[in-house]
Amino acid sequence: MKIGLLTSGGDCPGLNAVIRAAVLHGIKSYDHEFVGFRDGWRGLVEGDIIDLPRTKVRGLARQGGTILGTSRTNPYDHPQGGPENISIMLERHGIDAVVAIGGEGTLAGARRLALDGLPVVGVPKTIDNDLMGTDYTFGFDTAVSIATDSMDRLRTTGESHHRCMVAEVMGRHVGWIALHSGMAAGAHAVLIPEQRTSMDEVCRWVTEVHERGRSPLVVVAEGFIPEGFDDVTAVHGTEADGRPRLGGIGEYITQQIEERTGIETRNTILGHIQRGGAPTGYDRVLATRFGMSVVDLIQQKKWGYMVALRGTDMVPVSFDEALTGLKTVPQDRWDEARVLFGR
Amino acid sequence: MKIGLLTSGGDCPGLNAVIRAAVLHGIKSYDHEFVGFRDGWRGLVEGDIIDLPRTKVRGLARQGGTILGTSRTNPYDHPQGGPENISIMLERHGIDAVVAIGGEGTLAGARRLALDGLPVVGVPKTIDNDLMGTDYTFGFDTAVSIATDSMDRLRTTGESHHRCMVAEVMGRHVGWIALHSGMAAGAHAVLIPEQRTSMDEVCRWVTEVHERGRSPLVVVAEGFIPEGFDDVTAVHGTEADGRPRLGGIGEYITQQIEERTGIETRNTILGHIQRGGAPTGYDRVLATRFGMSVVDLIQQKKWGYMVALRGTDMVPVSFDEALTGLKTVPQDRWDEARVLFGR
Amino acid sequence: MKIGLLTSGGDCPGLNAVIRAAVLHGIKSYDHEFVGFRDGWRGLVEGDIIDLPRTKVRGLARQGGTILGTSRTNPYDHPQGGPENISIMLERHGIDAVVAIGGEGTLAGARRLALDGLPVVGVPKTIDNDLMGTDYTFGFDTAVSIATDSMDRLRTTGESHHRCMVAEVMGRHVGWIALHSGMAAGAHAVLIPEQRTSMDEVCRWVTEVHERGRSPLVVVAEGFIPEGFDDVTAVHGTEADGRPRLGGIGEYITQQIEERTGIETRNTILGHIQRGGAPTGYDRVLATRFGMSVVDLIQQKKWGYMVALRGTDMVPVSFDEALTGLKTVPQDRWDEARVLFGR
Amino acid sequence: MKIGLLTSGGDCPGLNAVIRAAVLHGIKSYDHEFVGFRDGWRGLVEGDIIDLPRTKVRGLARQGGTILGTSRTNPYDHPQGGPENISIMLERHGIDAVVAIGGEGTLAGARRLALDGLPVVGVPKTIDNDLMGTDYTFGFDTAVSIATDSMDRLRTTGESHHRCMVAEVMGRHVGWIALHSGMAAGAHAVLIPEQRTSMDEVCRWVTEVHERGRSPLVVVAEGFIPEGFDDVTAVHGTEADGRPRLGGIGEYITQQIEERTGIETRNTILGHIQRGGAPTGYDRVLATRFGMSVVDLIQQKKWGYMVALRGTDMVPVSFDEALTGLKTVPQDRWDEARVLFGR
Repeated sequence: MKIGLLTSGGDCPGLNAVIRAAVLHGIKSYDHEFVGFRDGWRGLVEGDIIDLPRTKVRGLARQGGTILGTSRTNPYDHPQGGPENISIMLERHGIDAVVAIGGEGTLAGARRLALDGLPVVGVPKTIDNDLMGTDYTFGFDTAVSIATDSMDRLRTTGESHHRCMVAEVMGRHVGWIALHSGMAAGAHAVLIPEQRTSMDEVCRWVTEVHERGRSPLVVVAEGFIPEGFDDVTAVHGTEADGRPRLGGIGEYITQQIEERTGIETRNTILGHIQRGGAPTGYDRVLATRFGMSVVDLIQQKKWGYMVALRGTDMVPVSFDEALTGLKTVPQDRWDEARVLFGR
Repeated sequence: MKIGLLTSGGDCPGLNAVIRAAVLHGIKSYDHEFVGFRDGWRGLVEGDIIDLPRTKVRGLARQGGTILGTSRTNPYDHPQGGPENISIMLERHGIDAVVAIGGEGTLAGARRLALDGLPVVGVPKTIDNDLMGTDYTFGFDTAVSIATDSMDRLRTTGESHHRCMVAEVMGRHVGWIALHSGMAAGAHAVLIPEQRTSMDEVCRWVTEVHERGRSPLVVVAEGFIPEGFDDVTAVHGTEADGRPRLGGIGEYITQQIEERTGIETRNTILGHIQRGGAPTGYDRVLATRFGMSVVDLIQQKKWGYMVALRGTDMVPVSFDEALTGLKTVPQDRWDEARVLFGR
Repeated sequence: MKIGLLTSGGDCPGLNAVIRAAVLHGIKSYDHEFVGFRDGWRGLVEGDIIDLPRTKVRGLARQGGTILGTSRTNPYDHPQGGPENISIMLERHGIDAVVAIGGEGTLAGARRLALDGLPVVGVPKTIDNDLMGTDYTFGFDTAVSIATDSMDRLRTTGESHHRCMVAEVMGRHVGWIALHSGMAAGAHAVLIPEQRTSMDEVCRWVTEVHERGRSPLVVVAEGFIPEGFDDVTAVHGTEADGRPRLGGIGEYITQQIEERTGIETRNTILGHIQRGGAPTGYDRVLATRFGMSVVDLIQQKKWGYMVALRGTDMVPVSFDEALTGLKTVPQDRWDEARVLFGR
Repeated sequence: MKIGLLTSGGDCPGLNAVIRAAVLHGIKSYDHEFVGFRDGWRGLVEGDIIDLPRTKVRGLARQGGTILGTSRTNPYDHPQGGPENISIMLERHGIDAVVAIGGEGTLAGARRLALDGLPVVGVPKTIDNDLMGTDYTFGFDTAVSIATDSMDRLRTTGESHHRCMVAEVMGRHVGWIALHSGMAAGAHAVLIPEQRTSMDEVCRWVTEVHERGRSPLVVVAEGFIPEGFDDVTAVHGTEADGRPRLGGIGEYITQQIEERTGIETRNTILGHIQRGGAPTGYDRVLATRFGMSVVDLIQQKKWGYMVALRGTDMVPVSFDEALTGLKTVPQDRWDEARVLFGR
């Protein structure tokens, strides 16, 4: 059997570990052959394909990024895309199955191709932990780890200067990174897209912490919208291409806190360091298990399924189930965290 | 309500985060009062008690160790121990509930006290991840993380010298740390107490890796017993106090590999660095959630229960259920990992 | 003898290690007594003083920030400031010597007080490594270390997406952090205040790297001014308080590269994480040696002097010598680094 | 010009950064060509040579180990060794200069070859920081950094259990790693080969610390010999090959402390993790500067010289000067550190 792998969407620590594990398991257990499509769906639709012999995946468990490259190409929007063309492409190269490693958008493309009859399976990938159907995905733990380490650093500076420190973390639609890193770092406020906390409440929490003689740490997910605003662009504007401006919300929060409370406040945007570099041990194990399991999915011809983590088990989950909506921070997790804020 | 906390058994990153979260949640949500028993059960039976006001738990989320101290005292073996004495002690200090934070031994003591009618709940703690009833406990992720980082370092040296490197990690009875750190570091052999791998097989794996031009990494749990030996002390002797000698198995494996394969081989015992220092973000979140949940257990008067992680949820688990045996590495997880070894 | 310590200016990893070492050496070797002025010169002029017994400095070698707090108060501008008032204050509290731990501004204040007859010595402190008279100061190595780690992460993302990554690091007036972290991370361009590199040259370097199939990494110090601009505010505007806007230059560079080369480019502002948190081993050793040496300076009544590092030695350097100007990156260090950029 | 590089002796973080910088500088500035001898002198005498084009050194600044491999072969003891054979070998391959990157033994070989008329220059390499003629070498800072981080972890465990923790670090002949990491970690005793501290004094320090309610941390270099012993093998025995047994001294110290003071004491041997893995930012900068400078040495035909660090400058130092003896910890550095031990 010849299996083609692709990585698609934003960079995520653990992609290489998935590739390595799939290739090793496939070759050693089933004598499969592997190729990689370069830069996600683009490589598939354009036939930009490289061989993936065993020597190519050496040492990849601990290496960040993806040796296959990535892009945001959609297999249906591309001029050479669509199921017929892709089918011809696969046949021409003798490829029997495609593994799409990616997030919501990637898996939606994979789902459509599977519905159109192509032999596609998936591996969930999201820094943001916003995919339904799996307890966690690789990359999230690394992002939380980096954010937590960074906040540990911000806190000493906050305390030395008696300042409030604001840390803006990733999370356009969900607050998982903010919630976990904020809880890990002992934050005094965590602001997430799921909860439209008012600036009054934020400032109350900050003031209460400051009055106890401490230096407040406020963690804000980039997609947070304070109460009273219509959407995220209303708060912090848009980039030239119309996307909400990165870093805008942290600046806004910082200015508001300083203005309303009189406490000197500083903003830090953690940005791209959250999604690059070597994965944590946790993410390497998860990615390795995903990579091995997806080969077993193929063995069972479970097209239209992805691998997922439930508790400590690898389970197959259909794209349909995984794509029913974003996995947001539920109310009880928020209530749990909220206890730690303010007085 | 006045709640007494104790930490017992070996050091474990996240103990302080549990203490902090319990105190903050108890004070802020229920207006409880907290005290700590110093050095585990010893502090309880001897009445060595300190107040735990909110100011005492500041900044503890990220701090390794335990501010309460720990020991291996058994509440039934101590001259002042036993349920009657402890009951009197609790009454004298007006303590309404006891939270025992510890591993198998500690929770066995807690279970017996709960059966004897005392208001005791538990928080599971084990570096080794060997407790039934919970998917994971805090400390394990930190240990895996440290072991993985260390192995990343060993590998460059192995490759520069064309050597085989052996890393001995914690795990007297179970191989979870070895399995996870070995998988994360891309080890070429993982030797765990649950699987009596023969030295012949180990040497075969090492030779095959070496023949592919690579430098083998062998991870061995301290409690591993090669095929052909009766028990761990038969392999590597005992300490003066009769415990199996730490570090012995790594040395034995190293000598055997070097002798049988002719490949230069070096041993490293990771030792105590695996169980100390700042917890990872993962462990801080888990410990914080455990600390908060155990206060809710008390609120429900669920004596004889501990908090546990199932998937992403906090659930109560009875001591009876948690203490049915050690949680060992199951055969399917071993089979999964084994694919990566050898040819 | 009674010695008063103060920390002044921006946060810097190693401040606490200086305090600890001075107190331990002073108490153990000379039986001195120590107090701390809170929040820099403010604590001195206002008499906001805390005792610093040995127990207060426990465990501080590895702790970021400063237990004394810091501020940017100037001892001459404060209403209660000036040499007479300070002299009265010192006498009232029986303080025989003042140790000012700080950067250029702080040491300028210390110098003036020493010229006005007060018993003041100094410890140089600067993240930016811009102080004359000493090879290095503590905090710089930690900043370089954090910046380097962050850039390692950015590189994997750059390579996965075939992007150019821009990292903005600290350095308003000098480019040391940019130079060292850029060299350590293998950057393809380093832009520093000392060198008015043109955007044409930057884009040429970026393009040449990209043409070799690599993903360019550009490191820019916050105070860099491209050729053709009058000053830093001309490029990226000012904050409300008139300071040049932080993060502006990285954004400008990013936009220019993307626009001129057509290569997708992303900006990351490392910001405050560079100056907080636990110091590196290097900085802890340097800070500890500074703290011990400054007590010996006092023993020799070398008022108007600070401790400094020359090669591997601690030497006294007069404030006059240390304050002759900023220590900028010399041309030969730039030429050395420049070899690594572009084709 | 065609230049051959070799790395020899024990692994050391930064070797790859030297190789990369030499190749890049040589190719870009002078249009030189580079080859590598595999496994140190062995590759040179046996003609085991690989090309080192620019693409081969990509990304090496941050990569531990050496892509050239290393060994402990001596160019004079090897059957094909000696100056005539090597000279013929160099001529046959058209190699104009040899760069030997290594420690004392390697540089002694290089010196002898240079005296015998061969075009050899050197780059000093030692984890142990024991080479005369240079303030520091790469690898040392990484080793100190790893040892310091490990000790930070050991301390929390020591304090939780009220134990004394012993950490054995590298240093067969000199105590630099022990001194720096011990000072950085706030150790209560540092035992180095240069100072024959008695076990009585060690136990006094430990007891005094314990009586103040703290948990003592003792750092011991592997080559330390307590007062009253003839040599290191007298204390802790020998390996099968006659070398002093690694880890023996830490065990001895641990047993002695526990026995004499009654304080529970645990030993950790840091071992090989100190010399592998990614270099620190500091070491990458130093290694990069060394690699570039050594190419300039060749340009000046300074055969018999190595590059060295003096203060912040790269300077040439003759092998004669560098090999006058080991750079041990001088008495004043010991006296400085000693202040921090005991009462």
